[in-house]
Amino acid sequence: MAKKSTAKAKPVVGIIMGSISDWETMQHTAEILTELGVPYEKSIVSAHRTPDVMVDYAKSAEKRGLSVIIAGAGGAAHLPGMTAAMTYLPVFGVPVQSRTLSGMDSLLSIVQMPAGIPVPTLAIGKAGAINAGLSAAAVVALSDVTVRRKLKAFRKAQTAKVEKMELPA
Amino acid sequence: MAKKSTAKAKPVVGIIMGSISDWETMQHTAEILTELGVPYEKSIVSAHRTPDVMVDYAKSAEKRGLSVIIAGAGGAAHLPGMTAAMTYLPVFGVPVQSRTLSGMDSLLSIVQMPAGIPVPTLAIGKAGAINAGLSAAAVVALSDVTVRRKLKAFRKAQTAKVEKMELPA
Amino acid sequence: MAKKSTAKAKPVVGIIMGSISDWETMQHTAEILTELGVPYEKSIVSAHRTPDVMVDYAKSAEKRGLSVIIAGAGGAAHLPGMTAAMTYLPVFGVPVQSRTLSGMDSLLSIVQMPAGIPVPTLAIGKAGAINAGLSAAAVVALSDVTVRRKLKAFRKAQTAKVEKMELPA
Amino acid sequence: MAKKSTAKAKPVVGIIMGSISDWETMQHTAEILTELGVPYEKSIVSAHRTPDVMVDYAKSAEKRGLSVIIAGAGGAAHLPGMTAAMTYLPVFGVPVQSRTLSGMDSLLSIVQMPAGIPVPTLAIGKAGAINAGLSAAAVVALSDVTVRRKLKAFRKAQTAKVEKMELPA
Amino acid sequence: MAKKSTAKAKPVVGIIMGSISDWETMQHTAEILTELGVPYEKSIVSAHRTPDVMVDYAKSAEKRGLSVIIAGAGGAAHLPGMTAAMTYLPVFGVPVQSRTLSGMDSLLSIVQMPAGIPVPTLAIGKAGAINAGLSAAAVVALSDVTVRRKLKAFRKAQTAKVEKMELPA
Amino acid sequence: MAKKSTAKAKPVVGIIMGSISDWETMQHTAEILTELGVPYEKSIVSAHRTPDVMVDYAKSAEKRGLSVIIAGAGGAAHLPGMTAAMTYLPVFGVPVQSRTLSGMDSLLSIVQMPAGIPVPTLAIGKAGAINAGLSAAAVVALSDVTVRRKLKAFRKAQTAKVEKMELPA
Amino acid sequence: MAKKSTAKAKPVVGIIMGSISDWETMQHTAEILTELGVPYEKSIVSAHRTPDVMVDYAKSAEKRGLSVIIAGAGGAAHLPGMTAAMTYLPVFGVPVQSRTLSGMDSLLSIVQMPAGIPVPTLAIGKAGAINAGLSAAAVVALSDVTVRRKLKAFRKAQTAKVEKMELPA
Amino acid sequence: MAKKSTAKAKPVVGIIMGSISDWETMQHTAEILTELGVPYEKSIVSAHRTPDVMVDYAKSAEKRGLSVIIAGAGGAAHLPGMTAAMTYLPVFGVPVQSRTLSGMDSLLSIVQMPAGIPVPTLAIGKAGAINAGLSAAAVVALSDVTVRRKLKAFRKAQTAKVEKMELPA
Repeated sequence: MAKKSTAKAKPVVGIIMGSISDWETMQHTAEILTELGVPYEKSIVSAHRTPDVMVDYAKSAEKRGLSVIIAGAGGAAHLPGMTAAMTYLPVFGVPVQSRTLSGMDSLLSIVQMPAGIPVPTLAIGKAGAINAGLSAAAVVALSDVTVRRKLKAFRKAQTAKVEKMELPA
Repeated sequence: MAKKSTAKAKPVVGIIMGSISDWETMQHTAEILTELGVPYEKSIVSAHRTPDVMVDYAKSAEKRGLSVIIAGAGGAAHLPGMTAAMTYLPVFGVPVQSRTLSGMDSLLSIVQMPAGIPVPTLAIGKAGAINAGLSAAAVVALSDVTVRRKLKAFRKAQTAKVEKMELPA
Repeated sequence: MAKKSTAKAKPVVGIIMGSISDWETMQHTAEILTELGVPYEKSIVSAHRTPDVMVDYAKSAEKRGLSVIIAGAGGAAHLPGMTAAMTYLPVFGVPVQSRTLSGMDSLLSIVQMPAGIPVPTLAIGKAGAINAGLSAAAVVALSDVTVRRKLKAFRKAQTAKVEKMELPA
Repeated sequence: MAKKSTAKAKPVVGIIMGSISDWETMQHTAEILTELGVPYEKSIVSAHRTPDVMVDYAKSAEKRGLSVIIAGAGGAAHLPGMTAAMTYLPVFGVPVQSRTLSGMDSLLSIVQMPAGIPVPTLAIGKAGAINAGLSAAAVVALSDVTVRRKLKAFRKAQTAKVEKMELPA
Repeated sequence: MAKKSTAKAKPVVGIIMGSISDWETMQHTAEILTELGVPYEKSIVSAHRTPDVMVDYAKSAEKRGLSVIIAGAGGAAHLPGMTAAMTYLPVFGVPVQSRTLSGMDSLLSIVQMPAGIPVPTLAIGKAGAINAGLSAAAVVALSDVTVRRKLKAFRKAQTAKVEKMELPA
Repeated sequence: MAKKSTAKAKPVVGIIMGSISDWETMQHTAEILTELGVPYEKSIVSAHRTPDVMVDYAKSAEKRGLSVIIAGAGGAAHLPGMTAAMTYLPVFGVPVQSRTLSGMDSLLSIVQMPAGIPVPTLAIGKAGAINAGLSAAAVVALSDVTVRRKLKAFRKAQTAKVEKMELPA
Repeated sequence: MAKKSTAKAKPVVGIIMGSISDWETMQHTAEILTELGVPYEKSIVSAHRTPDVMVDYAKSAEKRGLSVIIAGAGGAAHLPGMTAAMTYLPVFGVPVQSRTLSGMDSLLSIVQMPAGIPVPTLAIGKAGAINAGLSAAAVVALSDVTVRRKLKAFRKAQTAKVEKMELPA
Repeated sequence: MAKKSTAKAKPVVGIIMGSISDWETMQHTAEILTELGVPYEKSIVSAHRTPDVMVDYAKSAEKRGLSVIIAGAGGAAHLPGMTAAMTYLPVFGVPVQSRTLSGMDSLLSIVQMPAGIPVPTLAIGKAGAINAGLSAAAVVALSDVTVRRKLKAFRKAQTAKVEKMELPA
């Protein structure tokens, strides 16, 4: 796979996306994982243009120590589903907003997986990218008390932030 | 919450749905969890008609020992998102096929969650119900070798079944 | 609830919204209510990020003297429906225009409520925000002759304004 | 207006619909109003085929003592909006499920009213018809303690009914 | 009706629109009618804000000598259908592009008229406005040889213009 | 063109459709024209499977004495637009309900014509077929007092019929 | 790949589909190829459940002598795009009609391929299956005069069939 | 046909489009064909405004030596389907992104062709234009080893380019 940026600790989450243009969206996944102290790796893996890389990535993910994969893609978005087809790990899908159909094509081609191979899917675009990170953290938190504590702190801070918002008089 | 059917072992997955009419869909979640040996409980919890039950259910889920919640709902489907808002556990959403809009309303009102509170969402209807169970099992399998083994066996059997399918001559 | 700006008289309408970013839309509700002399309060109440605030707000609304609640939200918009689930007052919903799906997700997740808990819903965006205020005023006008008189004057002025519009020669 | 069936007491809610074929949907409005003790009248009033009847109905509604109008229509559904244009009373819209587009046309042509003339709109079909009745009752309940008591009892019974639902073992 | 700009000759086509903001679209109808020598009048007539003006306009159209009405409107667009309900003349509808839903709401609320009251509908936006003018001209041309000649010349010039278009080398 | 069934008088309206399966819809056009005394011919003319027949039909329509063409088609419906491209007569389009997309594809591929070649379009399915006949009659009625009289009688009878509809007690 | 039914001659077209349930649609591809004398093979190859089979199939297609691949799939349909990613041969996609979304999900997840890997896509369902066969035949016909002759005969017969259709009197 | 720019060698692919405004999209088809060494011609051919040119173009394409036609059009896009109706050559369709409906109208009116006349369709907009060129090249490559070699080199370079992409650290 093209490039892999590994955080300090051994990554437990793998973030993949089909093109460098998806980074604008998927960077939000990386940021939230950093904030929650979840070690991750990130790579460009194109289902259509580098299918062999995708096969290797998906098949080796478990033994490389990943617990969760987050895959972002747009248009006829096949990366999340095809990755899920070749690993037993949970794979979360992020529909990247597409130029012509606003991500409705991305959403449907990720979420409408047939019975047997699930891709739990988040919202289109930035919100989905952040929430994919939060979902991965929630999974990691089940067995990692540090992440659990950070996740709870994040959620409390988020609530406090809304409670402090002030509307103009 | 109305009724709770607990499998033999202490449940680690909670299946909730807004109405008894959703059971036609959500029974497929229960079946796959049974097949994979994942203990679960199931309840009717309506976000709109029993909001207090929902609050109790969501807030007590973690301390009651659940690891994952699966929420199915149709139309203006608020159960998955509201449950997710009140727990730190991963909550998977299943859009039940609605009568007038075929589940497109269910899908959008589950998947399009704002940043901060994720609901990883599966396909509309039966396929999504099965896949929510598989997703929960994949999460449980991260720390439970028996479930992991069963999940892998299920996937292999599934592959074998397709390989044996014969088209008419 | 974060902040509450109370107009001079005891508020009879409560305007709530999920985030400060919704104010750009919901300010139009406030403006029309001011114009029609309907006292209101306004608050940020997030169904997902401050669910406890929402529960308190909805459950206390009637005894705090409100007659009508107007709730604006975007995306997987759960605030109007969940508020309606916890009060007997009429709750009008305003679908805020969302970034990816232009508010179609907001509309469907507000309007498609199941039988039992209604959320009468207005148009997506600014027009809906204004009309939610007009709807609340029409309800208040049933028992308040001053508001009724102002509402009728507003409608007549609106008609007169259109009658005076001139197309370019 | 074709026929008008007046309940015992002086009607405070007027139910109108564009054709007798809409009765299959709108009868659910009548049933819930009966259950809640809200006197109503019901009529067939077609915006397109009996526009003069519609004008008379809308313009006379207030002085005839109605507090709320509920208008159901399908397809290019103009009855709710046109009625709202000619009265100061609140007019709730019910999008009847259309044959070709499942009521999406009905929904958009009712809910997307321009600023100035609101039509608070309920869900497509039967759920919307029931909820229009509940919305009207909630408005009436603001000044009628008997209806308020019945509405609260209805809501509590509804909650209790869900709490008693049992899933198959 | 607010203002009426009458071309030199007695108008045979009436162009109406719900608001001055629709003129940006509907001016293209006026331009093509001018080009084809079809006398027209143009007015702002709002179905919702000036319903009485609309009733007068529609009911008097035939005796005022109009042959065709062209009505443009956006969102929950009721002007074309309601006008058609109150005249025997052909009424062409132009769906003005709406801000949130790109005119899909305008299109469906104009074109999906029930059996009995037709509104032949053109494309969303500028193309539809031009084509409504061409449709009206085609109707007028059936009994007016001058218009027929101009229409044929327009069509031939249009063909010639395309035949002369050059792609970059 | 395959077959042509000519009514007694010289036809002034031509009804065409892409396949015999469209007759189930388009027969309603024929029926209303018969009822209104408008002579018509009807033919199967497929834009895709008999393009030469279509070219001949469209190009000869005017000199054969037709005043209006009504074209019904489904799916990627090109018959109305292509016919309009080759005649100066008004061509009304009827989107036949398609099997997979309920006629949304038929509607968009008929109504969204580019500026220059209009196809005034009626509703999807039976209602559109009836209304295409009524539209053609309205055009014919401009110069034919008998048809005008019949059209007005039809409209009055239609109004009377709705006024006599009775809802169940 | 599960089973492969080879026609008499060496197959030049490969028909693949994700499940035996897709055969109801894809048999129409087989039938038209048989009618046009184009030798084909057919197999069940699931992108999600038998990804390794898919990789083998796609990578070996060219050297096994195929000229064209036709892939049918429904829902989040990845088979056509993933096959296209691993071969240089033309791959035509057939969106199988899905149960909840009528094939709109199938269509978008096949047709909206990113630049670089094309999947020329046919209509949803049976019509698309037939047309995929015709498209493959048109490609084969470029270098095979027998197929070209049969294709032309088929098209002429099709035209003649429409020309002979008779509408009821 | 308006203008025709012939590449050096005898063209085997014909690129047509309905208007000069489509060139912004269709130039990407020309560029990729140039890159792959496939000789092409390009012309403006409007189904609606120059139908006779279209008939001539389509009917003469085969004897003029073309192997493939690529037709781009937007809105009610009839050019690809009508061209396909009048030739035995493969015709690929490119849905040009439309202004109001983002190309969904273009897509449906191209892809939803009835059984008998196929138009294999690519993605909306620029990606589809590039992929139409690649599809044509893949067809040409079946009998032209030079093109086949260039196509394979293009695909390999494309893969290498993705493999070399680097995400920010």
